[in-house]
Amino acid sequence: MATASKSRGGTADRMMPTARSISSSQVVEWDNGALRRADDYLAAEEPLEIRVGRHSLGVTMRTPGHDQELAAGLLLTQGVVTQRSQIAEIREAAQSKRPAQRNRIEVKLASGVRLESRLVARRGYASSACGVCGRSFLDAVRLQGIRPPNATVKFDPEILCAMTDTLRGSQAVFSRTGGLHAAGLFDAQGNLLALREDIGRHNAVDKVVGWALLEERIPLSGAALVVSGRGGFEIVQKALVAGIPLLASVSAPSSLAVQLARELHLTLVGFLRGKRFVVYSGEDRLLLSAAR
Amino acid sequence: MATASKSRGGTADRMMPTARSISSSQVVEWDNGALRRADDYLAAEEPLEIRVGRHSLGVTMRTPGHDQELAAGLLLTQGVVTQRSQIAEIREAAQSKRPAQRNRIEVKLASGVRLESRLVARRGYASSACGVCGRSFLDAVRLQGIRPPNATVKFDPEILCAMTDTLRGSQAVFSRTGGLHAAGLFDAQGNLLALREDIGRHNAVDKVVGWALLEERIPLSGAALVVSGRGGFEIVQKALVAGIPLLASVSAPSSLAVQLARELHLTLVGFLRGKRFVVYSGEDRLLLSAAR
Repeated sequence: MATASKSRGGTADRMMPTARSISSSQVVEWDNGALRRADDYLAAEEPLEIRVGRHSLGVTMRTPGHDQELAAGLLLTQGVVTQRSQIAEIREAAQSKRPAQRNRIEVKLASGVRLESRLVARRGYASSACGVCGRSFLDAVRLQGIRPPNATVKFDPEILCAMTDTLRGSQAVFSRTGGLHAAGLFDAQGNLLALREDIGRHNAVDKVVGWALLEERIPLSGAALVVSGRGGFEIVQKALVAGIPLLASVSAPSSLAVQLARELHLTLVGFLRGKRFVVYSGEDRLLLSAAR
Repeated sequence: MATASKSRGGTADRMMPTARSISSSQVVEWDNGALRRADDYLAAEEPLEIRVGRHSLGVTMRTPGHDQELAAGLLLTQGVVTQRSQIAEIREAAQSKRPAQRNRIEVKLASGVRLESRLVARRGYASSACGVCGRSFLDAVRLQGIRPPNATVKFDPEILCAMTDTLRGSQAVFSRTGGLHAAGLFDAQGNLLALREDIGRHNAVDKVVGWALLEERIPLSGAALVVSGRGGFEIVQKALVAGIPLLASVSAPSSLAVQLARELHLTLVGFLRGKRFVVYSGEDRLLLSAAR
């Protein structure tokens, strides 16, 4: 490691990084005038194309690894599918030695499931009749058929605070590269269900949600989703699609994220750091008075 | 302010936030068991549609403010235009009281400048003949006509280190919301040329690059670009399109970002924090031996 300034994780046994998710590189470290040449680890970034039959859903830059989950998550959060059974097959493109072929996921939908009619991509928001505004985005989420989380679960603030430690301690790639976002799914007892990392915040969320879809755990009505970055509109939308009742981010949410969370009764927590957090929406799902 | 845990900027006089870039909201703060209700500031997030003539370039989520610059920056970094004179007009859609109308930028290209033939959007990368891989993305950047920065400027490490302090101290919205990314352009003497903030890292970069385009300062052959987050492939690509010789990020670069920076001789610095940084590419533009 070249950089002593990087954050280190603790025990990193939850998700072993694949050979493709890290690469090493020669670098020069400058430390207050002192120069040092060293090998450093880099988080890998590669494009991934997702194809549904003959149709391309586009290309996303991502950290290789858990690509099927990423594709499955995108299919769910973009409204192409709502449950596991609607996906007949999801696989890496033909096992080839050409690297390009490892950057493509091919999906076959179950018979009767149509792509075009269900697809609510970003494009869809743009063509809203009233023009482009936050309101039309909120309406588009409703049109996607997303409802408030059907959950009676309550979360203990102390357990919530412990989740960020678990998240950081379990980040296998971050601890070596210092360059990745993480998304973790937890149950109300604070047990980590799944953790995924990616150079993209949205991808990390799509990967854990895709994991849940493939494991037939959607809706995630007993789970909390904890993310390493900010809580923006699209992260809130993804949590809601997955039926998650609580979303917590280490940093700030945006105005539109708060608006959507309040309209659809998602519990939205920000600035989850140490023994402190801010609740922006849905405080009824937190056992706030139970804390000492 | 509800959250004492937010980072505060110093003097924040470089870029005054507009009324639309911040909104306030009632929140609940939990601090080790103690509850407090307070008003908190949120960074605004709204969709923006960019139209070139009758063609929509798509919708991007952004923090309102400097929208013309954002649109101009996207036109440049997506390869639609290469200089200011190719844009005949760039304006907010008709002054209407409907909020939706304030979320649209209309662009008229100069006569003779064609949209379709010049557009190298993400879609373009996907259709590369060899399939989707990092290599094809690197090739696409070359096809876009991007060349190594034509710059003889050298940067002093001490001055480089001071830039992050200036960046943080000048962030007007971040200091109130804790939720924004920043991009700053500096000259080699460490003077701040322009600083823009946005919920999206890419948007903040497009805004400063768009500022430079509208000010007819492209190529930015004497400038350093400092960004608050990571240095990914797309940030490197944007810096190269703008002719910037040095890109520094507070966090880590990705593998593909390093590869592209090395191929096109961009000086790429990561982990720029305090009196320390890591050089991934183009160390010849840094006065490394001049440091004490």
